[in-house]
Amino acid sequence: MYKKINNYSNIKNTLLSENIVQGNCENYIGATQVPLGLAGPLKVNLKNIKGKSEKRKMFVPLATTEGVLVASVNRGLKATYSSIGINTYVEDIGTTRGTLFRVKNIEESQKIIKYIDTNFNKLRKAARTSSSHIKLTKIEHQIVGKNLWLRLYFFTSEAMGMNMVTYASEKIALLIQKDLKIKCTSLSGNFCSDKKPSWSNFILGRGRKVWAESLISKDVVKQVLKTSPDKIVSIVKNKSQLGSIVTGSLGFNAHFANIVAALYLALGQDLGHIPEGSMGITDAEVENNGDLYFSIYMPDVMVGTIGGGTRLPTQKEALEILGVKNNKGDSFLLAQIVAATVLAGELSLSAALASGDLAKSHKNLTRTTK
Amino acid sequence: MYKKINNYSNIKNTLLSENIVQGNCENYIGATQVPLGLAGPLKVNLKNIKGKSEKRKMFVPLATTEGVLVASVNRGLKATYSSIGINTYVEDIGTTRGTLFRVKNIEESQKIIKYIDTNFNKLRKAARTSSSHIKLTKIEHQIVGKNLWLRLYFFTSEAMGMNMVTYASEKIALLIQKDLKIKCTSLSGNFCSDKKPSWSNFILGRGRKVWAESLISKDVVKQVLKTSPDKIVSIVKNKSQLGSIVTGSLGFNAHFANIVAALYLALGQDLGHIPEGSMGITDAEVENNGDLYFSIYMPDVMVGTIGGGTRLPTQKEALEILGVKNNKGDSFLLAQIVAATVLAGELSLSAALASGDLAKSHKNLTRTTK
Amino acid sequence: MYKKINNYSNIKNTLLSENIVQGNCENYIGATQVPLGLAGPLKVNLKNIKGKSEKRKMFVPLATTEGVLVASVNRGLKATYSSIGINTYVEDIGTTRGTLFRVKNIEESQKIIKYIDTNFNKLRKAARTSSSHIKLTKIEHQIVGKNLWLRLYFFTSEAMGMNMVTYASEKIALLIQKDLKIKCTSLSGNFCSDKKPSWSNFILGRGRKVWAESLISKDVVKQVLKTSPDKIVSIVKNKSQLGSIVTGSLGFNAHFANIVAALYLALGQDLGHIPEGSMGITDAEVENNGDLYFSIYMPDVMVGTIGGGTRLPTQKEALEILGVKNNKGDSFLLAQIVAATVLAGELSLSAALASGDLAKSHKNLTRTTK
Amino acid sequence: MYKKINNYSNIKNTLLSENIVQGNCENYIGATQVPLGLAGPLKVNLKNIKGKSEKRKMFVPLATTEGVLVASVNRGLKATYSSIGINTYVEDIGTTRGTLFRVKNIEESQKIIKYIDTNFNKLRKAARTSSSHIKLTKIEHQIVGKNLWLRLYFFTSEAMGMNMVTYASEKIALLIQKDLKIKCTSLSGNFCSDKKPSWSNFILGRGRKVWAESLISKDVVKQVLKTSPDKIVSIVKNKSQLGSIVTGSLGFNAHFANIVAALYLALGQDLGHIPEGSMGITDAEVENNGDLYFSIYMPDVMVGTIGGGTRLPTQKEALEILGVKNNKGDSFLLAQIVAATVLAGELSLSAALASGDLAKSHKNLTRTTK
Repeated sequence: MYKKINNYSNIKNTLLSENIVQGNCENYIGATQVPLGLAGPLKVNLKNIKGKSEKRKMFVPLATTEGVLVASVNRGLKATYSSIGINTYVEDIGTTRGTLFRVKNIEESQKIIKYIDTNFNKLRKAARTSSSHIKLTKIEHQIVGKNLWLRLYFFTSEAMGMNMVTYASEKIALLIQKDLKIKCTSLSGNFCSDKKPSWSNFILGRGRKVWAESLISKDVVKQVLKTSPDKIVSIVKNKSQLGSIVTGSLGFNAHFANIVAALYLALGQDLGHIPEGSMGITDAEVENNGDLYFSIYMPDVMVGTIGGGTRLPTQKEALEILGVKNNKGDSFLLAQIVAATVLAGELSLSAALASGDLAKSHKNLTRTTK
Repeated sequence: MYKKINNYSNIKNTLLSENIVQGNCENYIGATQVPLGLAGPLKVNLKNIKGKSEKRKMFVPLATTEGVLVASVNRGLKATYSSIGINTYVEDIGTTRGTLFRVKNIEESQKIIKYIDTNFNKLRKAARTSSSHIKLTKIEHQIVGKNLWLRLYFFTSEAMGMNMVTYASEKIALLIQKDLKIKCTSLSGNFCSDKKPSWSNFILGRGRKVWAESLISKDVVKQVLKTSPDKIVSIVKNKSQLGSIVTGSLGFNAHFANIVAALYLALGQDLGHIPEGSMGITDAEVENNGDLYFSIYMPDVMVGTIGGGTRLPTQKEALEILGVKNNKGDSFLLAQIVAATVLAGELSLSAALASGDLAKSHKNLTRTTK
Repeated sequence: MYKKINNYSNIKNTLLSENIVQGNCENYIGATQVPLGLAGPLKVNLKNIKGKSEKRKMFVPLATTEGVLVASVNRGLKATYSSIGINTYVEDIGTTRGTLFRVKNIEESQKIIKYIDTNFNKLRKAARTSSSHIKLTKIEHQIVGKNLWLRLYFFTSEAMGMNMVTYASEKIALLIQKDLKIKCTSLSGNFCSDKKPSWSNFILGRGRKVWAESLISKDVVKQVLKTSPDKIVSIVKNKSQLGSIVTGSLGFNAHFANIVAALYLALGQDLGHIPEGSMGITDAEVENNGDLYFSIYMPDVMVGTIGGGTRLPTQKEALEILGVKNNKGDSFLLAQIVAATVLAGELSLSAALASGDLAKSHKNLTRTTK
Repeated sequence: MYKKINNYSNIKNTLLSENIVQGNCENYIGATQVPLGLAGPLKVNLKNIKGKSEKRKMFVPLATTEGVLVASVNRGLKATYSSIGINTYVEDIGTTRGTLFRVKNIEESQKIIKYIDTNFNKLRKAARTSSSHIKLTKIEHQIVGKNLWLRLYFFTSEAMGMNMVTYASEKIALLIQKDLKIKCTSLSGNFCSDKKPSWSNFILGRGRKVWAESLISKDVVKQVLKTSPDKIVSIVKNKSQLGSIVTGSLGFNAHFANIVAALYLALGQDLGHIPEGSMGITDAEVENNGDLYFSIYMPDVMVGTIGGGTRLPTQKEALEILGVKNNKGDSFLLAQIVAATVLAGELSLSAALASGDLAKSHKNLTRTTK
């Protein structure tokens, strides 16, 4: 079977040498190629790592096989560009690992919790021995029967940092194991919760919580988005919010996942984090003057500007297009650029659905509905 | 800004011409390249479209930037290969669209529901006018105040079919609109629920529900997976199940999302469907003879062998590696191959976490823990 | 210790003799007494068992220890009474039991499913041998590894019917066990899901799905509810809907649980079903003419007019106040009366929160806020 | 209509005078009487308010109309009594109110958050002006678009304290309103989240988090519970955990709601809090020596020994049976007694379902299955 692989000339026709992908992929045979389009320009007002506002303009690279996605984001960016642009906000939660200890009884779990309370600095130092780029910031816990989970929060500089965090968690687990003679059963006990949609990620956040908002004048809504603010507000409430309520969803939005997937792929992020990025809320209101207020909230954006796939040739270039590198705070900016782009995608699709008399807008709708 | 794009030589160095990506991506500037590795061989016992068993062996292409993923899946496939292989099962749910009607009151919603009950064949015919490959199979509904959502289920042959389903839903909506003079507000009202983790997708299913199971002898568990059946059972219960319970997750598993993402990317599937694919359950038990029973359940696998990204050069070759094309029932097989590969990934990671003495297995663990 | 019970003179001072409570309570020592208040009159337009509208007026008994609850419901009933009253709708889902079979593998689960498909009438007859008041209406299933759950749906006449349903499920389980030699492990496998808030109950429904809606003129909103329609709409959207979204709740409402608890207690219903009754959605919109459209949806109302606590003296009288007995369809009406009363409670509390200027309405607000 | 009330002689035949129920119920016409049974004795090892262990024995009053419930709890208490008794643990979370502010934009929300950070003590003092029994302990927040929710946590001494907390929240809201000129829209914005099952209550806790665990020797399991430890473990995993996973439930248990309802009713607690009390997890394991380890976790127990219905005659006596009054820390003990009783109920029902051969245990099973 394996020999037939030689026939796969397209897969083999790649700029990625075995040398380059070292650490990213085993049993390497070539590459998957996905079309990359540019949307924009995006006009955004970001918060930098010191909490100061920073205006930027940039094009946004999206890797996708889904027709109309780039065009749709583009339209959303145009509508916000014509208005005041997009304001973004960010809160650093940290990359988390949810380590599991198996104990004899609840008394023993409480012993560990007490130990953690009194030895936090010692644990922090232990974590630091794994990498100078990592800092333990908080530990939460959960007891159920003979299980004790710790949710270890780390600041991981510009890296998304799951691997760093796993190494650091091991240092911590080994120290607890040594001091208390209680065994850590699983470095990851799903209390992270990594690569899963979950209410703990939604409520407590993970990676970064990000918000984006924009004011779009009613004229721009009419000219660029071909609809009215109140129709968009109705779509957001009845589709993105109530429609998700009745399905028991964690995605109270139109299509976060589409934009997150296209960005993460283009930018060398871990695609396993798309489920986390798909969670969140879109909201809209009509202002007193008739303009449209449009906002999105993402509780769980796991991104980095170094490590993982960011060092691969095309991914590295895509990050350059956004103007983020390995400078202090760049991963903060990246998380906000994700939010701003998601807002554009939400605005455009909500408008497409709202725009219409169904029969007349037939072609248009089907082209822009996802 | 835009001119600088000319500098992005790696992105531009691609086999994808503007002509090829037509319909997949606008504002096209080049390609993103992601390393592709092979795991396997996979030994699987699939159910074909007639419900008959069909034994197959194949290598599995995974596109990823996450080190150890391919190696990990590979190990899982080896463990099951040494035993009886993997048995898979599939249930066709259909691709769904959740159309939203805005009504005056609940009476009016009930009028639409009654109309649907008595005119199902008429609606089916209307859907059929959009494509001969599509068949309306079921309609469910939900009323809240002035909102009526319909969940339209379609059989879409070998395509994942979201676009087909949108066109067909429009035909249905226009017919209802014409016959009842009640307006369809939004072709998609999130009652689908498309590209979102949701309990309705988990409980009712979407695309295909798939199951995979395997029996692994205790010797193979020891030799290949370096642990014991009862330790794996403990990890599955306390990490993948209880650990996800305490986080309010919809992913009661170790890392479905990783394998789903690597497969969907390699095979030209829509990455926006990774959140749906991340949902599901891993379970394990020790047999009376001490062997390991290991199984996974995925309620929502949205895949196809034609349409979307499947026609792109590298993606098409990846589908060829699996031996699935555009034959009747091939997308059924593909959904089950996804399940079998996910089982291998789950087995391997669960084993890595179970294998042990934390200090000794340091390197090994951190290399294989995700 | 036990002897001291003789001192509890208030508990012993009851109209309930040991004879009367036979079948309701063991180790009986007396009674708990809870104040009962009347709200109303309620003006409601119910659907009877034939789907016809039926106008009724009645007072509503509420047993509670929570000050202001009766007064608050009363105000809501007054506001709707002054307008058109409350329209209700009902859909019979059935009382369910989620039986669990433990199997060797998925093949065996599919054998049971196939058996059920071809022997449904035989199973229905078996259920009927347990009671002539019960009818098996549907069976749904779920497979995970070595577990097969069946969700057995029954029509239970005017009884809530959990006990009847358990007996009937046993008849079915024994028949499957006999015919297929596969063991039923647990008559209840939580797939019901009984007395638990759950998305399957929310999405599929349980007992009865009920809806209530009302139109309240803007004048009545002003005079009776001391606020305006748009303020109520804002509270419903931002508190009851968005506020519940951000907490991962299944209760997208202000306080269903309060009204459901007070009604269930007064009317001899099973208080274990309050969690199911707490689920649901409140929605509100401003009409084109400025009036208020207000509606609630409850997916899971488990009530009956015979059996359980309904035969106790005070509970029986409370049912008489509502005018429901053991006539065919009376439990349908009861479910809708629950919905209508819940609407009144939602309307009144939403208005109290909306009514405003915080400082001025100090006393009023705190008196009516729950 | 109203006059007919005079006929309701049973409702009127009560020890509750209009004077006594003042503050608990308006439009008072009499009482609902519910049978009260005793289970026990319960042997429990509680943690008092100083964290010290305190052994106690007591009977447990349960008010219910559901046959077999008291008997079932009784059996569970007997099984644990014969072994080591039940150990309980408690963590004080606090009674919460989720106040909603409506703002112009996210900037304004951040202004409030900053204000809170720097004025926490001022806010605490404001809260204190409403009652000397209340203490503000923590404030969490959530931003979505123009909404800012605060989750205000209060220590409320021995009261459950929802009313106290509402008054205190108003003091805080008024202060913020005055200092920042930003309007509080709704004292309760569902961010509490009060009387609703919700993942934030599950994950963050509310009122008190409580745990209970017990070791039951395999002989006692056999003699008292008529089954074996491994069968109980299987029921707990496959019914209470997996069975709830597949329904999207927040109650990973057999029937918390039944015991919570019977206790809350008997003890004068607010029945609107039963949905919160229905959430939680039951877990079980077989010890190395073959004995049974059984435990439960309740994240959200809202109880008090003063206020609300606790002052009514029969409810007051029921609290006396438990030996809790208005002493410092008594409400801590009460929360743990709830947990211990819930454990007994879970153990007994799990055993009933596990006990067996379906045909033989017919009568027994149906009598004890809920």
